[in-house]
Amino acid sequence: MLNRNKLREILMKYQMGMPRNDVGQTVGKFDKDRDPKASTILKSPNEKLVVENIEDTNNVVKAVELIGRRTPIEYFTYNEEDFKYIKPKEHTDYSKLDIFHRAISPILIVGQCFSLLPVLGVGHPNPRHLHFSFKSIPVLITLIFLIASSSLNLATMKYLAKIGVNAKNLVGVVFFTCVQSSTILFFALAPRWPRLIRYWTRTEMIFVRKPYEMPKRHLSSRVRRAAFAIIILSATEHMLYLISAVISQYRKASFCASVNNETYHFTFNDFTYKNYDYVFEVYPNTKFVGGLILVINFFCTFVWNFMDIFIMMVGKGIAYRFEQIKMRINKLLDKEIPEAVFMDIRDHYIKLIELLEYVDEDLSGIILLSCANNLYFVCYQLLNIFNKLRWPINYVYFWFSLLFLIGRTAFVFLTAASINDEAKDALNVLRRVPATTWCVEVERLIFQMTTSTVALSGKKFYFLTRRLLFGMAGTIVTYELVLLQFDEPNRSKGLPDLCT
Amino acid sequence: MLNRNKLREILMKYQMGMPRNDVGQTVGKFDKDRDPKASTILKSPNEKLVVENIEDTNNVVKAVELIGRRTPIEYFTYNEEDFKYIKPKEHTDYSKLDIFHRAISPILIVGQCFSLLPVLGVGHPNPRHLHFSFKSIPVLITLIFLIASSSLNLATMKYLAKIGVNAKNLVGVVFFTCVQSSTILFFALAPRWPRLIRYWTRTEMIFVRKPYEMPKRHLSSRVRRAAFAIIILSATEHMLYLISAVISQYRKASFCASVNNETYHFTFNDFTYKNYDYVFEVYPNTKFVGGLILVINFFCTFVWNFMDIFIMMVGKGIAYRFEQIKMRINKLLDKEIPEAVFMDIRDHYIKLIELLEYVDEDLSGIILLSCANNLYFVCYQLLNIFNKLRWPINYVYFWFSLLFLIGRTAFVFLTAASINDEAKDALNVLRRVPATTWCVEVERLIFQMTTSTVALSGKKFYFLTRRLLFGMAGTIVTYELVLLQFDEPNRSKGLPDLCT
Amino acid sequence: MLNRNKLREILMKYQMGMPRNDVGQTVGKFDKDRDPKASTILKSPNEKLVVENIEDTNNVVKAVELIGRRTPIEYFTYNEEDFKYIKPKEHTDYSKLDIFHRAISPILIVGQCFSLLPVLGVGHPNPRHLHFSFKSIPVLITLIFLIASSSLNLATMKYLAKIGVNAKNLVGVVFFTCVQSSTILFFALAPRWPRLIRYWTRTEMIFVRKPYEMPKRHLSSRVRRAAFAIIILSATEHMLYLISAVISQYRKASFCASVNNETYHFTFNDFTYKNYDYVFEVYPNTKFVGGLILVINFFCTFVWNFMDIFIMMVGKGIAYRFEQIKMRINKLLDKEIPEAVFMDIRDHYIKLIELLEYVDEDLSGIILLSCANNLYFVCYQLLNIFNKLRWPINYVYFWFSLLFLIGRTAFVFLTAASINDEAKDALNVLRRVPATTWCVEVERLIFQMTTSTVALSGKKFYFLTRRLLFGMAGTIVTYELVLLQFDEPNRSKGLPDLCT
Amino acid sequence: MLNRNKLREILMKYQMGMPRNDVGQTVGKFDKDRDPKASTILKSPNEKLVVENIEDTNNVVKAVELIGRRTPIEYFTYNEEDFKYIKPKEHTDYSKLDIFHRAISPILIVGQCFSLLPVLGVGHPNPRHLHFSFKSIPVLITLIFLIASSSLNLATMKYLAKIGVNAKNLVGVVFFTCVQSSTILFFALAPRWPRLIRYWTRTEMIFVRKPYEMPKRHLSSRVRRAAFAIIILSATEHMLYLISAVISQYRKASFCASVNNETYHFTFNDFTYKNYDYVFEVYPNTKFVGGLILVINFFCTFVWNFMDIFIMMVGKGIAYRFEQIKMRINKLLDKEIPEAVFMDIRDHYIKLIELLEYVDEDLSGIILLSCANNLYFVCYQLLNIFNKLRWPINYVYFWFSLLFLIGRTAFVFLTAASINDEAKDALNVLRRVPATTWCVEVERLIFQMTTSTVALSGKKFYFLTRRLLFGMAGTIVTYELVLLQFDEPNRSKGLPDLCT
Repeated sequence: MLNRNKLREILMKYQMGMPRNDVGQTVGKFDKDRDPKASTILKSPNEKLVVENIEDTNNVVKAVELIGRRTPIEYFTYNEEDFKYIKPKEHTDYSKLDIFHRAISPILIVGQCFSLLPVLGVGHPNPRHLHFSFKSIPVLITLIFLIASSSLNLATMKYLAKIGVNAKNLVGVVFFTCVQSSTILFFALAPRWPRLIRYWTRTEMIFVRKPYEMPKRHLSSRVRRAAFAIIILSATEHMLYLISAVISQYRKASFCASVNNETYHFTFNDFTYKNYDYVFEVYPNTKFVGGLILVINFFCTFVWNFMDIFIMMVGKGIAYRFEQIKMRINKLLDKEIPEAVFMDIRDHYIKLIELLEYVDEDLSGIILLSCANNLYFVCYQLLNIFNKLRWPINYVYFWFSLLFLIGRTAFVFLTAASINDEAKDALNVLRRVPATTWCVEVERLIFQMTTSTVALSGKKFYFLTRRLLFGMAGTIVTYELVLLQFDEPNRSKGLPDLCT
Repeated sequence: MLNRNKLREILMKYQMGMPRNDVGQTVGKFDKDRDPKASTILKSPNEKLVVENIEDTNNVVKAVELIGRRTPIEYFTYNEEDFKYIKPKEHTDYSKLDIFHRAISPILIVGQCFSLLPVLGVGHPNPRHLHFSFKSIPVLITLIFLIASSSLNLATMKYLAKIGVNAKNLVGVVFFTCVQSSTILFFALAPRWPRLIRYWTRTEMIFVRKPYEMPKRHLSSRVRRAAFAIIILSATEHMLYLISAVISQYRKASFCASVNNETYHFTFNDFTYKNYDYVFEVYPNTKFVGGLILVINFFCTFVWNFMDIFIMMVGKGIAYRFEQIKMRINKLLDKEIPEAVFMDIRDHYIKLIELLEYVDEDLSGIILLSCANNLYFVCYQLLNIFNKLRWPINYVYFWFSLLFLIGRTAFVFLTAASINDEAKDALNVLRRVPATTWCVEVERLIFQMTTSTVALSGKKFYFLTRRLLFGMAGTIVTYELVLLQFDEPNRSKGLPDLCT
Repeated sequence: MLNRNKLREILMKYQMGMPRNDVGQTVGKFDKDRDPKASTILKSPNEKLVVENIEDTNNVVKAVELIGRRTPIEYFTYNEEDFKYIKPKEHTDYSKLDIFHRAISPILIVGQCFSLLPVLGVGHPNPRHLHFSFKSIPVLITLIFLIASSSLNLATMKYLAKIGVNAKNLVGVVFFTCVQSSTILFFALAPRWPRLIRYWTRTEMIFVRKPYEMPKRHLSSRVRRAAFAIIILSATEHMLYLISAVISQYRKASFCASVNNETYHFTFNDFTYKNYDYVFEVYPNTKFVGGLILVINFFCTFVWNFMDIFIMMVGKGIAYRFEQIKMRINKLLDKEIPEAVFMDIRDHYIKLIELLEYVDEDLSGIILLSCANNLYFVCYQLLNIFNKLRWPINYVYFWFSLLFLIGRTAFVFLTAASINDEAKDALNVLRRVPATTWCVEVERLIFQMTTSTVALSGKKFYFLTRRLLFGMAGTIVTYELVLLQFDEPNRSKGLPDLCT
Repeated sequence: MLNRNKLREILMKYQMGMPRNDVGQTVGKFDKDRDPKASTILKSPNEKLVVENIEDTNNVVKAVELIGRRTPIEYFTYNEEDFKYIKPKEHTDYSKLDIFHRAISPILIVGQCFSLLPVLGVGHPNPRHLHFSFKSIPVLITLIFLIASSSLNLATMKYLAKIGVNAKNLVGVVFFTCVQSSTILFFALAPRWPRLIRYWTRTEMIFVRKPYEMPKRHLSSRVRRAAFAIIILSATEHMLYLISAVISQYRKASFCASVNNETYHFTFNDFTYKNYDYVFEVYPNTKFVGGLILVINFFCTFVWNFMDIFIMMVGKGIAYRFEQIKMRINKLLDKEIPEAVFMDIRDHYIKLIELLEYVDEDLSGIILLSCANNLYFVCYQLLNIFNKLRWPINYVYFWFSLLFLIGRTAFVFLTAASINDEAKDALNVLRRVPATTWCVEVERLIFQMTTSTVALSGKKFYFLTRRLLFGMAGTIVTYELVLLQFDEPNRSKGLPDLCT
């Protein structure tokens, strides 16, 4: 505060001494006296003064010396605008920038193959090429998938209505409904996506240049590695599911055939029929239909995983920027900093929060669905933990599936919560600001960081923080204990006879 | 702070130079020198200086120029009073104002037909005409309804005492008791209502004129649309209930008659007798009594819904004003604002909070009852979700009823929570105030907004916020799981025989 | 802040002009010039300046005038000490003061008859006469009661060990253990009580004189009415218990006698024997022992209630003082207040908080026990709500007992929470302080009030606030649902045969 | 703020008057004029000015006098650096300092005998001698223990897989897995330990000298007493376990022998075989193997307890330093303190928090494991509370074990929470800072203390505070109620026949 006010005072006094419209001239007049570096900075009128240089200790000293010796007008004629990002005239080459839009584009392209987020121009480096059109192939894919999954879902519902609903056989309908809701939510997001990504990129432009530095691992590699890891694991999980289903059915068939002294040929039709019998009550039992069902199921599994991948990517994308702010503050700690720098940081911090809120508004439907979905399936799978299974491959699949589910849920939560963690960490760093650098802007920044919950939210009902995960774990345990007790009679029955 | 203190200083110095009681004269002395616009403003002594104009950037500049060039006495001789609303001399035409009293009057009139809030003058535009009198028709309606519903309630209780209470057959008594408590709470609110509404209108007068602007959709249309939507849906629900009861009874009668080879005439008396047999153990089974019971039941359903409608309207009414404050702050962001404007806003913000607390004190009984009521009935209905019903119309009614109940509960909660949302949103906007406009008043305002929970409450036990809704949902699930387990034996019994 | 700093400045300048040790003289020198009223105040050197008069608007104006015209030394030579309470030389007549010690003395005397808080001098108006001695009658009563109740408790335990413990028959042991723990906690409090009360009274002395005003209803009447109401209700409850026991036993005896064609004489011995059979397995069945058991039981019931009465009284005692602070702040709102007044208020506020923490440290054992006790018994009684009872008098007793228990628990909680409520209310009032009066001290006071939880606590594990009560209610419902399910088999068994 | 700024101003003015590089000389010039004490302080250039003396009221007064009379340059030429701890040139004799490293060294040595934290140099007073090496005896012990316990664990798992898992027989595997995880976590901590302890010692150096004072009981005695108390109690518990096992088995054997008219010799092999039959399905039943199992079991029990001991020690170690800060602030209260002192305190406070976060990062794995472990075993043991046991010694062991478990858990939690308590207590003291001493640094310190949660955490999912313990207690009760109900069928079966 001191520094800035002092500068202002000097400026003010100077202005008093000469008529207002002469200021421009004054700058010219004192131009020769200035040191060559400063004059270079101001030479081209389009380029604003890079105030960030003040963070460089040497420059600060020089600036102070300037104050004492010469008219500092030319040095300090910046206004609030200077601290903001100024869009350069020439074309930005987005393909070289480490921005979110670029980082996620391969994942989104894969997602579009599976009917999600049907926007055009996802692969183009420049976010200006993004647009949504109803008459496009991605939209077509989405619609086809919605119709196909609906037919499966309805067949399942019909079957349930016949045999009677209970808490356990609901799982299929819940799965399909989740998947369809997810597809629809992504479809609803698509028209808003171009605007969102453009806003995001605009905000990110602040962070791709000095004084912000890149953390060691780039955003792109962070996001892509995590996303592909989940995709591969989910594919493995699906394969295991198929293998488990095939093997256990084959084993059963061969065992029962040997019991009954029959010979048995295990065909593709048999497999699909036994696994999806509820579907074949509606549709004809042909190889084509069977294959279609398997494909749709695969698509569904992907969509089911993609929700979490998407939230994870968004979480990483925003947390990365908060990390950059934290790094910048960290570097300032041992220096004497003018208030303007903290104004700058606070401005960027608020811009990030505004981006976060903007994103949160568009995404919180998906977040809500993903949380509910994960909560339900974790509870459901945990419930089966004490169940007896017939074949070893079933155990392998069950435990892989359970651990993958819990791991994915925890990972997505923790990644989303990392936004909160990074924002809080920045606060801890700020607290070390010494009394000499302390100013109103730092105080505001600290107060703001302390009192606002910076996190993705589920429609503002809850915020994705580490604490929530702890609370949810406690809740899951409670639910699980009650449900286990509930399910006791079924569990104690044991396995049914194999060949009836 | 800078601006205001500087002005004060100048003022102070000026005052030092001349005797105190000359100030008035001074104003006159410098009158000619002032620019004509400023003098016009001060011409009539009744009209205070419209300080709000300072928000206009041009004026601010002029004001600053004035300070530099001339004696600013006449410009700044305002005291705290000037920032408050000054009641105009002439009559206000309330029928043209978008105030809460006017917005809710049609709903209240409908409510009065159903025995609620027996106040006179509800329909008059001017809140001064509101008064409560024991000797009035609305009070009479209320008393008659109370007596009638009591007789039904007592009959139900007597029946229960005979057959034995359990968690499930309690629902009737809970319903009637809720309805009666609600009627009594509204009756107790009635004498306090005129005072409350007058205070409310007085506070609202701040917001019906500049610098506050109207949000796109007016308060009246917001409140009335939502209220009538709930009323229509609740009427539909009640109709469905009657249809479901009639059809299932008719079906049963005709089926049993065909089984027993009898002919069966389905009469009104049969219907009422079968549905309300517990009442007819006390009262004679005549068409009149049967009709009366149906009418009272209809009244009860309305009262039961009206609690929620009422809370929703109050929520919308107050949230609307917070929205206006938010809009005003939003408009200020890019300008240089004197501290006085923020003093003004803070003053209005506090006035709104005081109104909220005043309203909360009078209403939190109703809020507490409504929450308990909704919680109970949601739990009760969810418990029946796995029950088997006999006829399709029963399913239609059950699901409509359940979804309506959950929807209504969520809607009321979210509307009440919107007060909190709007107040928090204003905070987010305030945080963007740049360092130049930053002043003690903004700091106070932010601190206040950050640390106080602005929301309707249930007797201060809990506050109606989005987070509460999330917590309640978790609690309901826990209760439900335990209750489902509890109810397991009854559920597994299945449907009783039809014709016994 | 402005005012105070200005005064300091003036003072500083004055001091510069003359040697330091002359200041005292200076005061004398200017003595004649002062207006008579001010001089009266300072006449006797022992009486410090009553700075509180500054709150009187007239005086403030005068003070300001003094600053302008004369040397203000004599007016402002107060240091921090002046704002604190100065113990007057002459004897304070405590019997006329509305202090906590006096307010609770009748209740404590009654309590001492029932073996609680064995301190001497409880009835004396002056807290200086309070002291604890091991060789005193109250201590003797306490020890006798402890021995007597131990013998009952051990008899119960022995009986339980024989028949086997379950969740339901534990209630007797829990009751006796609670009572004994309570007696011991009060016994442990006794030696610390005189010190506590003296500290309390010293703090209260601030509030028994101007500028603090008495709320309408005095502390004494508030405390005593509530305490006696609970005592009377608990006595009624105990009477009903005896009546219910006698009647149901008499009815049973006469019924079985008539069934068996016998004549039956209902004697005192029969009654005590049937009710306390587990005791008579250890002790001889004589009238004396029977009577003794009844007396001990009566004592136990009183002790059991006294915990809550005690917490309630402490809650009222402290909340009353916070209310006074609130009232004082409320009165200041429309005036221009020097910072010194807020320093004063903040000082008193902190003193109250320190008193609260001091009290909390000594009492939180009792609070913890009382909460656990209430929680257990509410759960236990609620569990019996669906039980069938034989005689109408049993229902009367059960419902009276249940409602009394819930009512007492809620009342004690709410009274304890009222400390928190009053402290928060004061905050709401402070927020209205206008910008003109705003100063660092107000800011500190608001910050302090906002961020500290002012409430009695259970060993700092939880704080007795309204929100806690809400949370506990939710927890009780959860427990109850699980317990009800647990107890289902017992409940469905119905009443056992009467005459076996 | 006032004081410090004033000093700066004076300093500034002085510097203006003479060339910069003359300052050093100036100090020399004015050397004679200074009072002898001050000159002594500055005599040796290596020793910096002990600014803390300013807290001594007399010195402050002198300093102020100096300002008035003479050039204070020599007195105030300190910069921020002066407030930090300056490492002395000569060797510090760590063996005389009350530092954490020294306090815990005997406990760690004992721990290393039981395979935990295999670091070299634990017993050396100087933390510089700490280092980790893979080729060391402690590491060897750790590896041997890991292998040995793994073989036991695998044997248990194999046994379980054979007889089928349920919630109750899982306890053995959970126990061994916890113990092994704990060993691994300590092993992973070992390489980081030297760095951690050195950082810790560096931070502690601030607190071992003036102005910080020692609380009455030294850190060493606090830590060691508590640790040895737990060790002794846990050894007792283990002995009781063995005694209970031996006696009940001996009794059973002799009873069955007498029933079957056989003579019975109770041998060591019999004992180990009956107790650890699941192990002997894998390993041969020899005396050596039996002895080994007993030894490994003893080690496991120690490791199981050591987690809690370790957390407790860390908790005490950090809480002790916060207590010292609190004591220092407490002593300052009645004096007029320059802002520099509060800057100093804030600096130390932040250093402590940073130490805490550093420690937390390294330890939170162990904390998470310990909490989960305690939660599980408390739930498990509570579940057995209503079980019938055969022999009195079983009851003695069960109740001792249960109370020890609960006591240990509560103690560890409360000790860890005491960090939070001490940090909060310091806040309460700070709030009493009078308006005269109030400065920006105090404000910052208070704000910081208010808004940050100073506590050990479980991976930031939760913080170990008193409130958490309360929440956990509530959760345990809920779990327990559900589990008891779950376990009802097993419990009601009663004891199995003795000799089958």
